[in-house]
Amino acid sequence: MPQTAFALNRLPAPEARFCLEVERFIVEECGLNVAGLELTLAYSGGADSSALFYVLLALAPRLGFTLSLAHLDHALRPDSHRDLQAALELAQDHGLTCHNRRIAVAALAEERKIGKEEAGRAARLDFLRSLRDAAPERWIVYAHQLNDLAEDILMRLIRGGGWPALGGMAALDRKERLLRPLLFTERTKIEAFLRALGLGWIEDPLNRDTAFLRNRVRAEILPLFLRENPSFLEAAAGMRRLAGLDSEYFQGLLAPHLPTHPEDQSLLLSSLLRGLDKALRLRLYKARLEALGPGQPLLNNLLALDRAWQKKKTGALFQFPGRKNARLEPEGISFSREGS
Amino acid sequence: MPQTAFALNRLPAPEARFCLEVERFIVEECGLNVAGLELTLAYSGGADSSALFYVLLALAPRLGFTLSLAHLDHALRPDSHRDLQAALELAQDHGLTCHNRRIAVAALAEERKIGKEEAGRAARLDFLRSLRDAAPERWIVYAHQLNDLAEDILMRLIRGGGWPALGGMAALDRKERLLRPLLFTERTKIEAFLRALGLGWIEDPLNRDTAFLRNRVRAEILPLFLRENPSFLEAAAGMRRLAGLDSEYFQGLLAPHLPTHPEDQSLLLSSLLRGLDKALRLRLYKARLEALGPGQPLLNNLLALDRAWQKKKTGALFQFPGRKNARLEPEGISFSREGS
Repeated sequence: MPQTAFALNRLPAPEARFCLEVERFIVEECGLNVAGLELTLAYSGGADSSALFYVLLALAPRLGFTLSLAHLDHALRPDSHRDLQAALELAQDHGLTCHNRRIAVAALAEERKIGKEEAGRAARLDFLRSLRDAAPERWIVYAHQLNDLAEDILMRLIRGGGWPALGGMAALDRKERLLRPLLFTERTKIEAFLRALGLGWIEDPLNRDTAFLRNRVRAEILPLFLRENPSFLEAAAGMRRLAGLDSEYFQGLLAPHLPTHPEDQSLLLSSLLRGLDKALRLRLYKARLEALGPGQPLLNNLLALDRAWQKKKTGALFQFPGRKNARLEPEGISFSREGS
Repeated sequence: MPQTAFALNRLPAPEARFCLEVERFIVEECGLNVAGLELTLAYSGGADSSALFYVLLALAPRLGFTLSLAHLDHALRPDSHRDLQAALELAQDHGLTCHNRRIAVAALAEERKIGKEEAGRAARLDFLRSLRDAAPERWIVYAHQLNDLAEDILMRLIRGGGWPALGGMAALDRKERLLRPLLFTERTKIEAFLRALGLGWIEDPLNRDTAFLRNRVRAEILPLFLRENPSFLEAAAGMRRLAGLDSEYFQGLLAPHLPTHPEDQSLLLSSLLRGLDKALRLRLYKARLEALGPGQPLLNNLLALDRAWQKKKTGALFQFPGRKNARLEPEGISFSREGS
């Protein structure tokens, strides 16, 4: 299909409206000006990234951005190279670049002694971050949609997250140059868009593998929430909006107390902490830990750290996911990562 | 059983520790000095209020408070008067007062066109508040425990609550004079305490009626969360701690902007709102609505109100649960309750 065949004014009215709704989300809800950017779509060939590909194809000339694809071959299925082949062909058909890489995720999981789900996520993140860092105007675009958001909220709740983390993944992250244009769009609408246009997609059999928490949440837990509240997806979008506001709010308050360079591991001074409300101290610990690299601190561990600080337990050591530590020193708290 | 038979030093060590753990929760975690207070326990005769009755009986001489019972006969079962009789006898055995009232909850539900669950809650609230208001040193004590808290968090999530409301019911509310000493205690420990002491309790058959959302959450949803994270109850306690901190934090910031008297329904001025971060404006709307009486505003409705205020849609009217309204006026937002 040549690119001109997907111009907005050639689409049936409902599908054109679907595209414009995504445009409105990017421009108004996210407040992002994409003119001049390269939007690199994390493309798997599933329904969500297929739909977003065509939507962005239709919006690119209107909004003035360049579209490219990024495909990671996880090599978890013997025929996974076919998905890569399809991505390359799709890009070629439309005269676009398809950045790609192949990673043996199963071997990576074994090597790092982590699950295949986690290894796949780490490999994707690494691939997409390296792409982003290679070009200053390049943003990474994810096709996560509203059902994914609701599942993410439920998974964060299961795990015991704090607020605003509990509000789920963000639609926009300017620091990370990351955008999720479908985040408030229901999965059923995405599939209806594809069907109406006669566009196919790949169903990843791993999406039904109940060895993965996400799939159990999708198959068992989210349906119960939707049974109790048919508007639960809207409620999830509302939580995300509030979490986004609170996240900005806390970031604004804490920015003066955060190191400008990640390698600056100066002590978090007790003289500073004593002037902050406990609600802010907890967020400051979290921000300091996050600046050290991946790995989400659990809320109860942050609370334990603060209790120890209040009780002046100098010498106490707290361990956080991602091999990160916090240690109580005589004059404050030091944060560090093992092996760095 | 005479009161002296339940002195702390006559209890087996594990059960004495259980009582002291509740004491620590009241004194340290809640920071409440109960000396000189009358603690009026909302007593149903179920496991939780039975256990808390004996714990408070053991702690009363140590902490210097007076214990009394409050029992509401909901008249939902033909034999419900027997539960009242049992409560009266228990109080008499220990020389305590048992405040009591009988309400035909089914008739109340029909009259107000609400569910029996909601009618029961409203009747209990009304009964306990009137008791509290009758004596300035009287606090209402609820036997809600950690499983109830986790269920409450899940129900608030289902409904689409904001933060910090999502963190569930509070352990302490000084304004409402309300205390929940078992809020971080697991239900299994409560039943073990009763069994170890050979104490019986009443199982309310309504607790298994799946017509009530709470019972479906208890029977179907919470078990899935515990399957995915066996420490989910601890995680719920962590969320509650953070919600408590955030609640105090926001209340502190908003207190100067809240009317001192509930009947003061002065306009919320745009000149004030413009100086507040959106994260604070939403909480201010919520606090103004809550000051008008019962009924929880939904997050998405608060967000819609703020959008309309930003777009200066003068004349727009927003309706909130509890027959409460917000109306955009030329100089700000007015909040009111229908029929008041």
